Amino acid sequence: MATASIISNHGTVTLPEPLPLDGGQRLEGVEIAYEAYGTLNPARDNAIFVAHATTGDQHVASPHPITGKPGWWDRMVGPGKPIDTTRFYVLSANVLGGCMGSTGPGSLAADGRPYAMRFPVITIRDMVRAHVALLKELGIERLHAIVGGSMGGMQALSLAANWPDMADRVLAIASTATMAAQNIAFQEVGRQAIMADPDWQEGNYYGTGKAPDAGLSVARMAAHITYLSEESLTGKFGRRLQDRDAKSFGFDADFQVESYLRHQGLSFTGRFDANSYLYITRAMSYFDLEEEQGGRLAEAFARTHAKFCVISFDTDWLYPTPQSRKLVHALNAAGAPVSFVELAAPFGHDSFLLDVPALDRVVKGFLEQ
Amino acid sequence: MATASIISNHGTVTLPEPLPLDGGQRLEGVEIAYEAYGTLNPARDNAIFVAHATTGDQHVASPHPITGKPGWWDRMVGPGKPIDTTRFYVLSANVLGGCMGSTGPGSLAADGRPYAMRFPVITIRDMVRAHVALLKELGIERLHAIVGGSMGGMQALSLAANWPDMADRVLAIASTATMAAQNIAFQEVGRQAIMADPDWQEGNYYGTGKAPDAGLSVARMAAHITYLSEESLTGKFGRRLQDRDAKSFGFDADFQVESYLRHQGLSFTGRFDANSYLYITRAMSYFDLEEEQGGRLAEAFARTHAKFCVISFDTDWLYPTPQSRKLVHALNAAGAPVSFVELAAPFGHDSFLLDVPALDRVVKGFLEQ
Repeated sequence: MATASIISNHGTVTLPEPLPLDGGQRLEGVEIAYEAYGTLNPARDNAIFVAHATTGDQHVASPHPITGKPGWWDRMVGPGKPIDTTRFYVLSANVLGGCMGSTGPGSLAADGRPYAMRFPVITIRDMVRAHVALLKELGIERLHAIVGGSMGGMQALSLAANWPDMADRVLAIASTATMAAQNIAFQEVGRQAIMADPDWQEGNYYGTGKAPDAGLSVARMAAHITYLSEESLTGKFGRRLQDRDAKSFGFDADFQVESYLRHQGLSFTGRFDANSYLYITRAMSYFDLEEEQGGRLAEAFARTHAKFCVISFDTDWLYPTPQSRKLVHALNAAGAPVSFVELAAPFGHDSFLLDVPALDRVVKGFLEQ
Repeated sequence: MATASIISNHGTVTLPEPLPLDGGQRLEGVEIAYEAYGTLNPARDNAIFVAHATTGDQHVASPHPITGKPGWWDRMVGPGKPIDTTRFYVLSANVLGGCMGSTGPGSLAADGRPYAMRFPVITIRDMVRAHVALLKELGIERLHAIVGGSMGGMQALSLAANWPDMADRVLAIASTATMAAQNIAFQEVGRQAIMADPDWQEGNYYGTGKAPDAGLSVARMAAHITYLSEESLTGKFGRRLQDRDAKSFGFDADFQVESYLRHQGLSFTGRFDANSYLYITRAMSYFDLEEEQGGRLAEAFARTHAKFCVISFDTDWLYPTPQSRKLVHALNAAGAPVSFVELAAPFGHDSFLLDVPALDRVVKGFLEQ
């Protein structure tokens, strides 16, 4: 039996004004692709914006148009789910720089050719600026909440810092206010893997019949390890062999974990644009709310009246709990109401996407309070 | 003022017998390059074998012939140093599969062409088997100790398990008896990065004027992150910019940590052979003393009378303390005398190579007891 789509609205909005960017440029004709579930109430005060992570998109709770897999937060968003679409109007949009309908390096520039590396380097704040403009076009002046995990959490924090009246509630999961050196390092490895692939062609691979799939696949493999905990890798795969009784004494994927990673890398190339990966990870490495506010993180939250909820996971070593704690201290210093919890979950950073009932309860409770 | 070399002996030994390999093959004419410091005493009982890590070599305490940099354990090995060459005859050898003089994929096969990927897949035990044969050729029947960090520690443990009378003391630092899923995963990423590079040419790049430097560089960058702790990356680099006052809004190495990683990757390609990297990481991923002994790790140590010393570092997330603890429990179960310490050091896995005075004391104390 086919499940009825829960999408209530979707489309692509062309922003009427050029989008000013942190890098100093103004981007004309920006398109932002969005998807929504539920109904905006007459008071227009029940909208929740779900901000996606690095390689996510607007298909939060609908099948992915390329892979056909359930939306990336299907377990969290829907009727009766923690982010309840019978109660809230839930909206998500592909980030600026992305490759799922919003303007990015694969989009056509004014000269009719893809931007490729002519696309300006963007920041997390630029992504949020585009989303704020989208919301305005959709007639939403104020959000009941903005919610996001990982890079989605950064967008939520950036919104609170830069558009302090825009959201009444800010929920940042497995995230950080400042990208740390280790994260910058992993992001750089991914970019170097892509740019080392001759098929990248300095970014001008569109229409050539070639794309830096090998490099993008390696980038994804390296990143994917960081999304999981050591214990989840051990529990899920350990040293078990893949479809064989003994080691091959060769370079095939003897181990299940090798086979799994190769699959993660290869399947990613079918749904993601390598240049978008460069731009989005660049935006993440640039993210530092503390620097943006002249070195005092608390300043970022001095002007907002939003309530905050910060969630970390004990096995997340990519955005470990001390980074959330630092954020919470800044919120405390700013006098912002904040609840903070470190949840126990075995899955590492990816816990925000997986079956963690305690997460469901915290999210639901915060949004409905 | 030039420092006098402390090398007392060095050379390359051709093993007189074909070397049997765990994969079932026998390798003819194996050459092992070694280097020694100090003097073998008349009783021939003061020899310490230092086993090197993944990308190390026999140049433990002498300048590297390619980079000119001090030996990789120069701070640990020498006259009056923790491994005191005025007291011990300290010997090291390039591992089988390596690229610093021992037989590896870059060596010529019987047909006069480089083995390349025709080189057999080897194991840690194969490396040790070659070293045992080397020691026999050098007239050393028994070691005062075998010492190694990381993959060197695996070799030390493999020697104790498979040649139980060979060493009186076994010192394994920042190591493991079983390669965990996360480590296998990182090793696979490195290999995929190399094999994705078109210049790899299925391994047949020797003499073509091309080598998979880009892939090897990415592999090294990814691995290098795992050698360091998050706190050491933050302390050393944080978010500091490299030779600039502001972010470039481009894809240059804006951050010091990016510049550092790129340098680590590029400089590595000048001194290491990509195929050796494939074979050595494959040997590591295959390493599992527990499996080798039918699933009971304690069995590995049932036949040896050696004393053991196991050292881990609190910030080492590549071979974290629980892996050492598991090893120690097995040694306890086997009734082997073992001292175990987790040292506090900020440098992550690389702590075994760096300035950790407590490590010096433990190493010296164990070797001289």
